Amino acid sequence: MKFYDFAHAPSPRRARMLIAEKGLEIETVEVDLGKKAQFEPAFRAINPACTIPVLELDDGTALTENNAIAVYLEEICPEPPMLGTTAKEKALVTNWNDRCTLEGYSAVAESFRNFSKFFADRSVTGPQPFAQIPELVERGRLRAEAFMATLNERLGETPYLAGDNFTYADITGFCLVEFAGRIKMTPGDDQANLKRWYSEIGARPSASL
Amino acid sequence: MKFYDFAHAPSPRRARMLIAEKGLEIETVEVDLGKKAQFEPAFRAINPACTIPVLELDDGTALTENNAIAVYLEEICPEPPMLGTTAKEKALVTNWNDRCTLEGYSAVAESFRNFSKFFADRSVTGPQPFAQIPELVERGRLRAEAFMATLNERLGETPYLAGDNFTYADITGFCLVEFAGRIKMTPGDDQANLKRWYSEIGARPSASL
Repeated sequence: MKFYDFAHAPSPRRARMLIAEKGLEIETVEVDLGKKAQFEPAFRAINPACTIPVLELDDGTALTENNAIAVYLEEICPEPPMLGTTAKEKALVTNWNDRCTLEGYSAVAESFRNFSKFFADRSVTGPQPFAQIPELVERGRLRAEAFMATLNERLGETPYLAGDNFTYADITGFCLVEFAGRIKMTPGDDQANLKRWYSEIGARPSASL
Repeated sequence: MKFYDFAHAPSPRRARMLIAEKGLEIETVEVDLGKKAQFEPAFRAINPACTIPVLELDDGTALTENNAIAVYLEEICPEPPMLGTTAKEKALVTNWNDRCTLEGYSAVAESFRNFSKFFADRSVTGPQPFAQIPELVERGRLRAEAFMATLNERLGETPYLAGDNFTYADITGFCLVEFAGRIKMTPGDDQANLKRWYSEIGARPSASL
């Protein structure tokens, strides 16, 4: 297998942390998004959508979505379980993982990619050019703030997002909160639950990679 | 369990089709989005994010994300398998399911919700009001067109999105293509693979519900 990664991007960080939590060693190829290497023919041949992470299987199959990579790694390396063990826990891992991406990550990305000069004409990931839309900077921020409050509330009910156990949903949530730092959004002083959880996940060895 | 549904919305249709494919009978509660019932206190108490579908478990846990509902139903009713059977197939179901939602569904929704008068000040799902942004009507359309081409290409390689078997990824893709009809986008005459697959899934009994 080969893992296509980039150290400074929030999305492949999810896969990188998961690989570390599983104790796996996978050949890693750095795709330098800073130099727009994802648009070069060599990488387009692997993933025409020009996104990372990608996990390329030995038969050449390219898994281009974080959740697909997580499902595959859980299958080939079930310990420690990161996608839940009971029906309810598995469902809650997926529920919170999806909320973190659909409500949280998409909101931060919306704000960041429509603001940063680096993403001029690339406000959406992928090979198609899309102009930045200034209104989305504020809309994304408001959506992200609302979701941070949701996370803080949830983490007042349970120690981890899916319940009593650290799971992949926490990795996704942690990478999201870290990513929000790029739009200068950090857990507020009134968000003690979020702060406690964010510090705890950030202290894991997998977060230092 | 209780399943919160609305017959005219594209998102709960995914869960409804899955329930039918599994042969399950689950008590169903219609939430009339046409009358904005999702914002009423009774429903907010079940899902503060004001979205459907929701699968409420017997202990009161609310699964608010389609993929979480799918994971739960696959666990409690493994036959017929809808999320794949081998590690690779499971990963490919997730990969295509996620591409259909992240690249496809979000694009159609972006175009539709920023255009339709019904969604004035509700261009994003959930309880927060967000004004429509006219540029997103066209941006969403362009993104959706690109993804339809991706689907057509994929379906020239394999009979179903994840490979040889009909899976949940096909349900998600089918509901997406149907949803695209609301922005007057239908598979083109040059998209024979997409048309073949769309007709086939549409002829399944689960699609008539």
